[in-house]
Amino acid sequence: MRVSHYHLNTQKEAPAEAEVTSHKLMMRAGMIRKAAGGIYTYMPLGLRVLKKIERIVREEMDAAGAVELLMPLVQPAELWMESGRWEQYGPELLRIKDRHQRDFILQPTSEEVVTDIARNEIHSWRQLPVNFYHIQTKFRDERRPRFGLMRGREFIMKDAYSFDRDEASAQASYDNMYAAYMRIFQRLGLEFRAVAADTGSIGGSRSHEFQVIAETGEDLIVYNPDSDYAANIELAQAPCLIPTRAAAGQAMRKVSTPETTTCEAVSGLMGIPLDRTVKAVVMAQPSPEAGKPVSLCMLLVRGDHELNEIKAGKLPGLNSELRLASESEIQDAFSCPPGYLGPVGVKDIRVVADLTVANMHDFVCGANETGYHLADVNWGRDLPEPELADLRNVVAGDPAPEGGTLAIQRGIEVGHVFFLGDKYSRAMNATFLDTDGKPAIMQMGCYGIGVSRIAAAAIEQNNDEKGIIWPRAIAPFSVVICPMGWNKSEAVREAAEALYQQLLAQGIEVLLDDRDVRPGVMFADWELIGIPVRITVGDRGLKNGVVELVTRRAGQTQEVPVQDAASQAIQALDAFR
Amino acid sequence: MRVSHYHLNTQKEAPAEAEVTSHKLMMRAGMIRKAAGGIYTYMPLGLRVLKKIERIVREEMDAAGAVELLMPLVQPAELWMESGRWEQYGPELLRIKDRHQRDFILQPTSEEVVTDIARNEIHSWRQLPVNFYHIQTKFRDERRPRFGLMRGREFIMKDAYSFDRDEASAQASYDNMYAAYMRIFQRLGLEFRAVAADTGSIGGSRSHEFQVIAETGEDLIVYNPDSDYAANIELAQAPCLIPTRAAAGQAMRKVSTPETTTCEAVSGLMGIPLDRTVKAVVMAQPSPEAGKPVSLCMLLVRGDHELNEIKAGKLPGLNSELRLASESEIQDAFSCPPGYLGPVGVKDIRVVADLTVANMHDFVCGANETGYHLADVNWGRDLPEPELADLRNVVAGDPAPEGGTLAIQRGIEVGHVFFLGDKYSRAMNATFLDTDGKPAIMQMGCYGIGVSRIAAAAIEQNNDEKGIIWPRAIAPFSVVICPMGWNKSEAVREAAEALYQQLLAQGIEVLLDDRDVRPGVMFADWELIGIPVRITVGDRGLKNGVVELVTRRAGQTQEVPVQDAASQAIQALDAFR
Repeated sequence: MRVSHYHLNTQKEAPAEAEVTSHKLMMRAGMIRKAAGGIYTYMPLGLRVLKKIERIVREEMDAAGAVELLMPLVQPAELWMESGRWEQYGPELLRIKDRHQRDFILQPTSEEVVTDIARNEIHSWRQLPVNFYHIQTKFRDERRPRFGLMRGREFIMKDAYSFDRDEASAQASYDNMYAAYMRIFQRLGLEFRAVAADTGSIGGSRSHEFQVIAETGEDLIVYNPDSDYAANIELAQAPCLIPTRAAAGQAMRKVSTPETTTCEAVSGLMGIPLDRTVKAVVMAQPSPEAGKPVSLCMLLVRGDHELNEIKAGKLPGLNSELRLASESEIQDAFSCPPGYLGPVGVKDIRVVADLTVANMHDFVCGANETGYHLADVNWGRDLPEPELADLRNVVAGDPAPEGGTLAIQRGIEVGHVFFLGDKYSRAMNATFLDTDGKPAIMQMGCYGIGVSRIAAAAIEQNNDEKGIIWPRAIAPFSVVICPMGWNKSEAVREAAEALYQQLLAQGIEVLLDDRDVRPGVMFADWELIGIPVRITVGDRGLKNGVVELVTRRAGQTQEVPVQDAASQAIQALDAFR
Repeated sequence: MRVSHYHLNTQKEAPAEAEVTSHKLMMRAGMIRKAAGGIYTYMPLGLRVLKKIERIVREEMDAAGAVELLMPLVQPAELWMESGRWEQYGPELLRIKDRHQRDFILQPTSEEVVTDIARNEIHSWRQLPVNFYHIQTKFRDERRPRFGLMRGREFIMKDAYSFDRDEASAQASYDNMYAAYMRIFQRLGLEFRAVAADTGSIGGSRSHEFQVIAETGEDLIVYNPDSDYAANIELAQAPCLIPTRAAAGQAMRKVSTPETTTCEAVSGLMGIPLDRTVKAVVMAQPSPEAGKPVSLCMLLVRGDHELNEIKAGKLPGLNSELRLASESEIQDAFSCPPGYLGPVGVKDIRVVADLTVANMHDFVCGANETGYHLADVNWGRDLPEPELADLRNVVAGDPAPEGGTLAIQRGIEVGHVFFLGDKYSRAMNATFLDTDGKPAIMQMGCYGIGVSRIAAAAIEQNNDEKGIIWPRAIAPFSVVICPMGWNKSEAVREAAEALYQQLLAQGIEVLLDDRDVRPGVMFADWELIGIPVRITVGDRGLKNGVVELVTRRAGQTQEVPVQDAASQAIQALDAFR
């Protein structure tokens, strides 16, 4: 591609609203342009990246035996009512009315439409298993879209849906997709991790996230550097850190702690280690009892630990509606503010202690009285033995389930595989005639990949102060030729043009920068845009028969003979992740 | 592709609502499935056809120097307010509100977004010309979607937008796109015609439609078989068929014509040729005068001709709001019903005669009195000379503008190129700094191709009683191998498998029908689906070292030696349009 014929528009500054690196760099490199909050035009360079991601995804999905179709973007509400999601889905589901005032939605995913297709098209076990996928624009009306393509409203997703005869076959379909996802992210050239995940509101019983490793990621991944174990922070089990509870010491005593409302502050004031304190968090959820608006519970974690609300929400009797109790709810129940809460003397409110807390002794906690804490508190002596559960986030250094030590890193979720079971197929009555001639309900899985989000995640993982460093597989172009003095030197023009034709003939996606701008501008543009290999052609080098070859990631510069430049560029590319 | 791994679901019957051939055949062949009125899922076979069309369109757009990007589907209302189309566009424009009650639309086209991009990105004449295109889902909320992909609500369109410095350059961009469209439709293997067209409400001054020729088409194309002339019926000039007006004969007389309200009936009753009668059509449009709801006019065409309302709407003083007057409006003005109208004695209402009517003599027309017509009416004698205009549809046999005779055929509009001028760029202030350093307004063109509609149009043009006959370029697969007795004969299975591998190795998109169904079922399926070449492998032929090769279009069957089957199939394909 001749750059003069291409639409290039780099910018020195990113807009103020761009908070994260990928958003800033995609704006500056001219890859996206904002149309509205969370809605972008993919400019030519950006679209090339998306197409490369799509292609790899498509090839591996096809190779895995999935069949591509294309489901509509505007979907009838009736199907979403059948599944129950018309009511359950929050305002992220954009509900619209057509000119006849009929209800539709803009698809955020396509479980309903694909299940409708399956129940209409599949009649016999002979037609199973089948895995339908499409790559299509999606819409989720995020309350606060931000971070460019990381959390947009309109985005591009590959979503696949498997249908199977029974659970064993569905598990094989799930494993098949898991393997395909591993190949996809390997081919994309990204550092990633497959992570056991919570199935959340989408239901089902098994799930993995595919996380691109990046310091700027929003998700926390718990993993064992010495094994395959990896789970997201909601699912990773936090073990009890105290093998056995020591005997109680001094009698419990009340300590004056005025205006000391955090474990850190109490630890400082009393001169004791933070891991001797216990944090009490009061949560609320709608009460099942008539006339009682909420039911409260108190959850205890060690002072240096963090409560994981998702884990809490999965305890028997609690659910995903669990939330922090409000200050007034706490005042009503405890007659004291949140900073002084503790489990001693609590009646009629459920108390659950984290596994580690349960083996603490002589600990410090709130006294349920403003300005006071209790010290030397001991289970069984000062208060009843607690209900036990894993309530906290894993921290780096925690022992791993199979030995070794857990580590934590940040990631960006770019793929997710779910074992759905019969959640949708039962609600929508997607049955088939099984080998015994009787109707059976299909078992489903669903498998998503955020195509546009991958572009952003790749940048979060691969950038430096100059700009983007695209992995080779998804770089918009592989090589850029920068002639020094395009309009001044015929020798430069001829050598650059010859090299351009050689690389084109080898099937390399190459740019010829014929804009005749200053070298500094040229180099800055291509470093910002992140083309893997740059070849600089100048009169000085040509006199010695050489051109300059620079790799974007290593920043290595080497002079190579003109006649070897094309093959050396290809070699450099092959070494480029 | 092994058919057992592919999702195939043909049907004997099309749903009752499928009125046209392409809709019926795409439903029966399992290429589309309805999700809601005018909204379809493209099933795997259907999607393959779309992808092939897209690919040809993309390759030719790229070769023509256009640059692909991807504009959003959900677009902010503000831009549409700027252009004025937020108000002007009818209910086909789906207006939606997001969760914050902000206004958006689902894109039917993208003039506003692309003009916004141009005004933000293009600052200098050096960046012009540029042509941006995308291939994207569109939505038009048709009042009555029908005919499957022919008039859907959600559909796939390629839309391109050129920006130029001045009109001459914009004309060159238009010509460039016109040439690209010619190549695209040639490559698609469709019989088509580029037709001069009305610019309609989209504005601009020049326009061509690309029409796929099909008897079932909704559009009428006027063309000269002996020249390049072709225009749609709205634009084609209808000449005056009577060179000079003959002298008046007998005096005008009133004739009793009870319950005779059409020219055909009057002609029959009076025993005169239809071309001696004049049809008077009274039209209405909102009146510019205060207190007068509508203004009426009477338009005259010869009894054997048809009024063209689009031509009428373009007369000075009339506009696109022109419509047939209601019966009560006619009663109020003429004190008689529509069937007895005529120009004699009409006062205060504008009368316009078609060019041919103006040279008629001794003609018959309504008397503006129930049950009566006037005969032997003559211009200048019985009523004033009329205002003249081309008001009628061309009919086959009319003389062509450059000599020869006009013919008419039916077509399906699948592409449209418009010279827009500065309609959008002026409204949205899309300026650039011209060579003289002063801001100038960009000149625009827009160019659409209905990707999904092409699939339907190709079927309307290419089908028989057995099903679809895909042109080779857009067939979902090129060759299908049908083994007779897949599960019974090892020789058949081996020969079929070998042939399959040979064709795959040659890059041919080949299906291997390993379903082990009856030959009749197999053949009917592939004839319905329309695969260009079928190879039947059976024990009987193999004994003689031959297989059977059948071409879908010609229906020719020939026996070919097994070892030549692959090369003969490729030859047959090459001969296949």
